[in-house]
Order: sequence, then C-alpha cells, then structure tokens
Amino acid sequence: MTIGLGKCQFCQTESAPLTNWGARAEALLEDLAACSEAGPGVTRLPFTPEHRAAIDFLRSLMEAAGLTVDIDDAGTLVGRYEGPPGSKTLLMGSHLDSVREGGAYDGMMGVVLPLLALEKLRSDAVSLPFSVELLAFADEEGVRFPTALVGSRALAGTFDPAVLSMQDTQGITLRNAMKSFGLNPDRIDALARGPADVIGFVETHIEQGPVLEREGESCGVVSAICGIERHQIVVTGETGHAGTLPMAGRRDALVSAAAIVAEVDRLGQSTPDLRATVGSFTVAPNMVNAVPRIVRMTAEFRSPCDETRHHAGKTLRRFTEKLAAQKNLTIEANLTYAQVAQPCDDKLSAHLCEAIQKADANGLYLSSGATHDASAMADLCPIAMLFVRCQDGVSHKPEEFTSAHDMGLAISALAFFLRKLGSTTDHI
Amino acid sequence: MTIGLGKCQFCQTESAPLTNWGARAEALLEDLAACSEAGPGVTRLPFTPEHRAAIDFLRSLMEAAGLTVDIDDAGTLVGRYEGPPGSKTLLMGSHLDSVREGGAYDGMMGVVLPLLALEKLRSDAVSLPFSVELLAFADEEGVRFPTALVGSRALAGTFDPAVLSMQDTQGITLRNAMKSFGLNPDRIDALARGPADVIGFVETHIEQGPVLEREGESCGVVSAICGIERHQIVVTGETGHAGTLPMAGRRDALVSAAAIVAEVDRLGQSTPDLRATVGSFTVAPNMVNAVPRIVRMTAEFRSPCDETRHHAGKTLRRFTEKLAAQKNLTIEANLTYAQVAQPCDDKLSAHLCEAIQKADANGLYLSSGATHDASAMADLCPIAMLFVRCQDGVSHKPEEFTSAHDMGLAISALAFFLRKLGSTTDHI
Repeated sequence: MTIGLGKCQFCQTESAPLTNWGARAEALLEDLAACSEAGPGVTRLPFTPEHRAAIDFLRSLMEAAGLTVDIDDAGTLVGRYEGPPGSKTLLMGSHLDSVREGGAYDGMMGVVLPLLALEKLRSDAVSLPFSVELLAFADEEGVRFPTALVGSRALAGTFDPAVLSMQDTQGITLRNAMKSFGLNPDRIDALARGPADVIGFVETHIEQGPVLEREGESCGVVSAICGIERHQIVVTGETGHAGTLPMAGRRDALVSAAAIVAEVDRLGQSTPDLRATVGSFTVAPNMVNAVPRIVRMTAEFRSPCDETRHHAGKTLRRFTEKLAAQKNLTIEANLTYAQVAQPCDDKLSAHLCEAIQKADANGLYLSSGATHDASAMADLCPIAMLFVRCQDGVSHKPEEFTSAHDMGLAISALAFFLRKLGSTTDHI
Repeated sequence: MTIGLGKCQFCQTESAPLTNWGARAEALLEDLAACSEAGPGVTRLPFTPEHRAAIDFLRSLMEAAGLTVDIDDAGTLVGRYEGPPGSKTLLMGSHLDSVREGGAYDGMMGVVLPLLALEKLRSDAVSLPFSVELLAFADEEGVRFPTALVGSRALAGTFDPAVLSMQDTQGITLRNAMKSFGLNPDRIDALARGPADVIGFVETHIEQGPVLEREGESCGVVSAICGIERHQIVVTGETGHAGTLPMAGRRDALVSAAAIVAEVDRLGQSTPDLRATVGSFTVAPNMVNAVPRIVRMTAEFRSPCDETRHHAGKTLRRFTEKLAAQKNLTIEANLTYAQVAQPCDDKLSAHLCEAIQKADANGLYLSSGATHDASAMADLCPIAMLFVRCQDGVSHKPEEFTSAHDMGLAISALAFFLRKLGSTTDHI
C-alpha cells in the first residue's frame, strides 16, 4: 500500500511514497518537524502559524486515511473512524505542541503512529467493531501559557475557564489566541465527553528516559503515570567573613542545604519506585570569601505509588526539622505542588502488552515519570500508554531520536492492539 | 588635655573638645565617616573627593598633634614624629578606604587610635627614643580597582607598576586616577623603604570576627595573618528529566557537589587552626524538574599554618578524585589563588600583649583570618597587630561598631606599647 503524503506547508516538498511503516513514520515526522519556528530543533507553540501548518498537514493525512476530520473549540484536531452504529469510541492520540527547541517525536509521534496503524488496518481491509477517534491536542507542554493540557481537560470536563485570561510573554491572552485561531473558547464546556461513550484513551509516546534502551526493548507498557510533589525549601543561616568567622558556631546555610541534598538522594536511591531530585538550588551571598547565609532549593518526589511519595515527603520534613534544631538555623519547607498518580487500566494495558510481544518485545511494564495528556484523560476514562524507546533517554532537545525500526514495531503493535480489543468484550 | 578637632569637610560641624580618649576616638570616627559617598554606611574609594576630604581632615589632626605631614606618591598620608637623629622609625597605621556601604571603623580606626596614642604621649610630655610614622594608606580593600595594598606594597618595594593600567568601572586607569589626585605614580619605585631604617609595622584593626566578643576581651594580639588558598571546582555530570531518569546510574552534579561541601566543612571542623568554606556555588540547568548537570563552586582554606592549609588542599583533592571515579562524573579542581601565612613578630607582639594586659585585657593571642596592610608590610619588616573587639563580629556593613570603651583601652595600650618599646633595645 502506498499513499501520497501531501506537501509540507513550509518546504513544499512532496514526500515519496513508502511501503515500510517505520520509514513512513520517519518521513512524516521529518516533514512535520518543518512546521516549526526557525532555529535549532522544533519550536511549535499552540495557536500559532506553525501549529496551523501541522494541523493542515495532518488533516490531509487523516482524510487520506478515510477519517472524518474536525477541529474542536479547544483546538484539538479530531480524526474519526466510524464504527458500527451505537458502538463506543476508543480515543487515541497525543499533542502537537513542542517545547522551545525541542525534538520531532515528543507528542507528534503519538499522533502519527496510531494514524499509520489505522491506515495499516484499512490496507489490510480490517473493520473494527468500535469507533476510533484520533486526537491531536493543541497544548500539553504549557510553554506558551502558564497552563497546559487544554484539549485533554476539555474532553474530560475538567477545563477551568479562568485560565483563558492567562497571558503569553507578548501579553496575548489564551482566550484571544484561541479566538484568532478560529476557535470559540466559550464553548469548551460543551466538549466534555460522556464516560459511557468512551472505551478508553490510549497514548503512544517516546519514553523520554533510558529504561527501554538499557533493557534492550523497543517498546514498553506504562503501568502508571507517577504522582508528583514539590517542596520549596529555604535554609536561612548567618553569613560572615570566611576568614574571620571561626568554624565552631557557624550557621552556614550551604552546609545544611548540602545535607538536605544528600538526604533527598538517599531517599531516592533506597526507596523502590521513587525518584527524588533537588533540581533548583541558589546560594546567597555567593562569594568566595563569605559564609553562605541563605539557600533556596526545591525537592521533587515522583512515584507511581502515592503512599511511597507521601512517605518520602514526610521523611524529608522530619529530617529538615531535626537538622534546623541541630544546626541552629531556620529551614522552611513548603509543599508547593502535588499531583496524584494515575494507574493505567489493567485490561487495556494487558492487550497492549500482548501486542508488543507479538511485535517482538518482551512486554516490559514501566512507570511514566513525566506527565502526559493521558494524566488529564484519566478523569474521563480508563487510560493506557505505549512507550517507544528513544536514544540516550534524550527528549526536549533537537537531538531527540526514535528509530524507524522501533516506530515500525509500535505501529504493528497498535494495529494488533486494535484488532485484539475488537475481538474481546472490553470495547462494549 | 583638649584639642579642637577641626571641621568636618562635609557637614562643617565643629566637634566639641573631649577629654576621654575613647569618646574622642568615637567622635573623630563619626566625623570621618561623613567623608563618604551618599547612601548607607561609609563608601570611601581611593583617589576620590571622599578620600581627599578624609586626608585633609586627618592632616589637620596630625599637624595639631605635632607631626610633620606629607603625602607620598602612592597616596599614603604620612605623619612623622621625629625621634633623635639617627634613630630608627616605627611604622604604624592602616588604610583610609572602605568597601561600598561599609563601616566607620575598618581601616580608619587603625589611623585614629595610634594618632591619639601619640597625642596622649605628647600630653604626658613623653619623648620617644625612636621616630614614628603614622601611615594612612589609600587602598587596601581593592574595591575600586582590581588590585589592592598599593601604599603598603610601595613601601615594601613590592609594588607592580603593571597594575597602574587597571581600570575602574568608569574606565579610568589607576595611573590616571592617581595623577588626577596630584600624585606621580611613576615615582612609586622611589618609595621603597630600607629594612635597616625600620623597627617594624604595627597595625591596629577591628577584629572583623566574633572571637574577642565571645571571650569577653576588649583587645587581642594577632599571632599571624592566615595564609589563603582558593580552589575552583567544577563538577560535571549529566542532566535529564527528574521524572523519567531512574535513580540508578544518575550522574547528578549537585549530589556530588553536596558531598564536597560536606567534606570541606568536615575538614574545617576537625582541623585545629583551619577555616574551610564553600562560599560560591552555582547550579545548572537549575530547574525544579531537571537533574543538575554542572556545579561550579569554590573552596577556600585559611590557616595561620601553611602546612595545615596545604594538607587540607591535598585532602580535598584526593576526595574529589575518589568521588569522581565513584560517581562516574568529572570533577576539575584548580588552585586559583594562594597566599602564604605571615607570622607576627614575637618581640613586638610580646610588648603589645603586655600593653593590653596593663589596659585590663588578658592578653589573648588570635590569628587574623583576613588580609591587612600588615600582610604586605611583612615583606619589609617585622609586623605586629592589635585587634579591637567589634560588635557581633560584623564588618564591611553600616552596622560595624566598636565601643568608645574598647577604643579608649586600645589607645592606652598603644601609648604604653610605645613607651615600653622605647625602654628596651628592640628599637635599636
């Protein structure tokens, strides 16, 4: 089977027809990567000309694949495969936006691979006993506006209209950006789906981590999307001249902050299923000959198990209280962000696991440390995720890479998954 | 005895005559603090109108005290008490410049107190069997130009003419600043003193640390000026998404840098006569959800014993080498600065010790963690230093404070010291 790929909106190149599904995905993603601001890698922010170019390109692909295409008022491109009358709908897809100077796979690959899986089924003359909607969300990264997951929250009925007043760095509100894009953000409420009509949401995504590569696996099944908590910690001691202040009695903020870094790392290293990171860390006065007075730092815990994460947070808090008393300084620790873990659906995941095993993988389950559209969709319906191996665990950079080989296997697995789901009662 | 204090160059206030030496010092320092840029505390940079105002004020005081006054080509104000023909000269004094928004005591007090001691001897009709020169150096802090100790190095014959090309933030070279001040910097060479003519250099200074206050002592004798070494350390690991990068195998630069902070502090806490500080510390990418890739930090060691300091530097280097291998990351550690310790002269210090004991102190010896004009003068002659207690160990801030009581004791001690020195053969 061959299908014309359409012209790239930027370079106007007509891609050559390809018979290999993985190579096809690679070529499409390369063309779609051109829907970007100038500069290294891919910069495609929501409700911009680059976003529009990607939508137009994908719309023609979806139509060529026989899907009915529409854009909803949250800016989500929806390609619908119509199943038998009265059948439920399986939602698939991911997001079209990127970070600044990001890669070609994050998000976009999760639209292209299920599209090619649907094409593959069509070319194999397979009909499904349920409907499928392929969703290409506008904003998952939250780079342009200080909010994210606009399209997925709209479908889940959890969209907060207050965020429409948020502004980008140019002072343009989300509301006006959406209006200029031809959308009516005041009708987002009406987009909420009924759980009874939906089988589930299946998202395909690059792993953005090194686990699959280390394990020699092309694909894996996500067990859960990790919950997250973030603590802002401020250690306040006393500064002084590094030469004249005796060691005894020093209230050096950096020495205590270093002990907190060690404790956070110890928690992460010694607790199964916990990732623990001090990522942000600033010192003042920050001079070679001054004892540090204040350190502002963050501690982040992620775990697929909320209990594990809570326990780490509590352990850290006890540690900082004891340290402050011991070192005679002040340590404030505040929980600034918390997000519960989202376990993936057992049945959908089991089908995905069988599908990747058919496609030559071992069926590894791994948790997702990053948040995805599936996190928001979990408020609507069962979720499942397919992770595809990426090179060196790199993401959010121009060097982000997933091989045609691995994408080809993922397309086969997704096609198998759809047939398998249709052969069970899980879609009813 | 009463002496008119002259008018303040800025506020034109005529100070009232005072009979109490400590209160006299306090009043003079308050007037001299007005020789400052506007803003909090004292800002008096070298070769500026504020510097000129301080010189003019001190010149009148010196002349009133019977000294012969001159300014040398390094900008040092020199007030000379003439001893018998052929006698050697004892040098005393400190510096007139301040840091930005500094205090009224650092430097200036070391000019005012010996001046009042000389006045006191004069009022007591005491003649000394040696000459005394009271030196008020232009630049010890090194705030305006990226060099320091101009006046003391000139006398010691260690001044490097290359620094005359250094510029301040306005682009004015040191050479031109000095010329505009009426000096001839090309004749600085000629200022070098002959060691045979000099008895020694005695500097009075606020402690700039908390030791005397903790020990309940008004004054102390400096045993040595600490040597210093500074290491620039760069820890380079690998960044990654805090959610997707597993704990095992992380090459987190901050975790290793925190271990270095702990080791530097451990060295300082466990080694007598060593002060060890990580003062500067910056992390990148410095984001809540990114594993830190690189930490740039400093480690500073100070000790009155060079061997102790070297040993600490070597121990740290071994530690970082082992850590880099263990954690699979790169740690560069470079010695960027080293300054040897300057022991104070036993005989001069013993006289100072006896003098402060007469003035109601116990005669505590302590090392100086900070560098002083005496550090440079040590290349010319024996040095000794008298430390006076300051409040809360605070210096280089507007709140810097030394009491009239303590200054009064220091003046008595200095006067006793001069008489005592004259009564021995140590001045010959």
